[in-house]
Amino acid sequence: MLSKNNIKYITALSMKKRRDAERLFVAEGEKLVDELLEHFQCELLVATDDYLSGKTVVRSNTIIKANAEELKKITQLKTPASVIGVFKQPEYTFEPDVLDTNLVIALDDIQDPGNLGTIIRIADWFGINNIICSPHSADVYNSKTIQATMGAIARVRTHYMELTPLLQHCKKKNIPLYGTFLDGKNIYTDTLTPNGLIIMGNEGKGISTELQPLISHRLFIPNFPINAKTSESLNVAVATAITCSEFRRRMF
Amino acid sequence: MLSKNNIKYITALSMKKRRDAERLFVAEGEKLVDELLEHFQCELLVATDDYLSGKTVVRSNTIIKANAEELKKITQLKTPASVIGVFKQPEYTFEPDVLDTNLVIALDDIQDPGNLGTIIRIADWFGINNIICSPHSADVYNSKTIQATMGAIARVRTHYMELTPLLQHCKKKNIPLYGTFLDGKNIYTDTLTPNGLIIMGNEGKGISTELQPLISHRLFIPNFPINAKTSESLNVAVATAITCSEFRRRMF
Repeated sequence: MLSKNNIKYITALSMKKRRDAERLFVAEGEKLVDELLEHFQCELLVATDDYLSGKTVVRSNTIIKANAEELKKITQLKTPASVIGVFKQPEYTFEPDVLDTNLVIALDDIQDPGNLGTIIRIADWFGINNIICSPHSADVYNSKTIQATMGAIARVRTHYMELTPLLQHCKKKNIPLYGTFLDGKNIYTDTLTPNGLIIMGNEGKGISTELQPLISHRLFIPNFPINAKTSESLNVAVATAITCSEFRRRMF
Repeated sequence: MLSKNNIKYITALSMKKRRDAERLFVAEGEKLVDELLEHFQCELLVATDDYLSGKTVVRSNTIIKANAEELKKITQLKTPASVIGVFKQPEYTFEPDVLDTNLVIALDDIQDPGNLGTIIRIADWFGINNIICSPHSADVYNSKTIQATMGAIARVRTHYMELTPLLQHCKKKNIPLYGTFLDGKNIYTDTLTPNGLIIMGNEGKGISTELQPLISHRLFIPNFPINAKTSESLNVAVATAITCSEFRRRMF
């Protein structure tokens, strides 16, 4: 049975401040939780009999059985799932050397947790294992982000740090710095490398003026027909997807 | 001033039933409303003094001035915008002949209004002017859809109809029918035509078993490296974006 303290403990984790202090995050839903159980330490699992009876082993420090009514009290979803897990946040360090041979995505103040989660899922699909978030980006442990990753959070490492020093470091080492701009070069025909930093800008403002001069490759996803009066921009997750897809297409 | 009746009238439009009966929809925010005012008949505009004082002409049947407090009562957004417009739903007819020379997107039970809106924005970017939605797809006039289109709704026509007869019609006329599948052919190297129907499936279930046998071109967006243990799938809007981008890349 779920105690009042349990409910308080779990619902408090909807606040970033609390997640940071406890170094925990929450995930919901059978498929997602099953995947995370294989990768992260689980502190607490709240689940229905149905969920638990289907498992032979569940690796969690504590397991609490709960019914649908109880799960309703702690869910962040519209329709509560059969299982909610509280996981330990992993600790990663970013080795900039990875940029010598691999692609890395940098997010410059992405605000929407759903966009961040979708971008993590995209990175995973395209074998990009590291994402750098500027300190003011959405929180990767926001439940909307976690749910939107659909489990990709288990394979993609996110790191929060100032972007300016990182871009300066790349520039010094001649590591390509890519960004998308309305006046950039056609991404379909410009040279793309198998390594480098792909910088994606804020939903409203794009790449910040401080970072812009550091970008070495200004790219553009052409609308069709070219110069048609269409939407002014693409959603940032969508632009990330097309950009990553085009980088990977060249490597086949 | 905003009357109780006004509030009731606008908030009732958050229900599909009511939108359908009145043939109306609601949009919020200066940029979006400004764009829609150029394309759709506006029945009612509720706006702050600030918004109105910046305009020389506002083409709306009725205009009501309101302050931030009043706008809070009718907004569907977390932070109310300076303007909310009630617009007449446009009436479109779909001419299947368009498929002889153009690309059209068909959505097979897309459930999430945000995904639908994002797909409309993608279609607009890539010059795809028609989207067919199966009858059980999300409602294009849901406020989440409208907001996610960022104005693309003004240029892309959505039509609700049964997909099976349409696909059968295409098959008879040898119009290519594209769909993405995990066992499809590499989209980067397979032949793509400048016309045809691109079918995108439901978020959880993909393309329905009834439609699958009708698809003439089974495509796959390769993950990287190929056969890596990555996410099982991409978000449907993301998959639509990559697919449309790849079709258009071939036409440059």
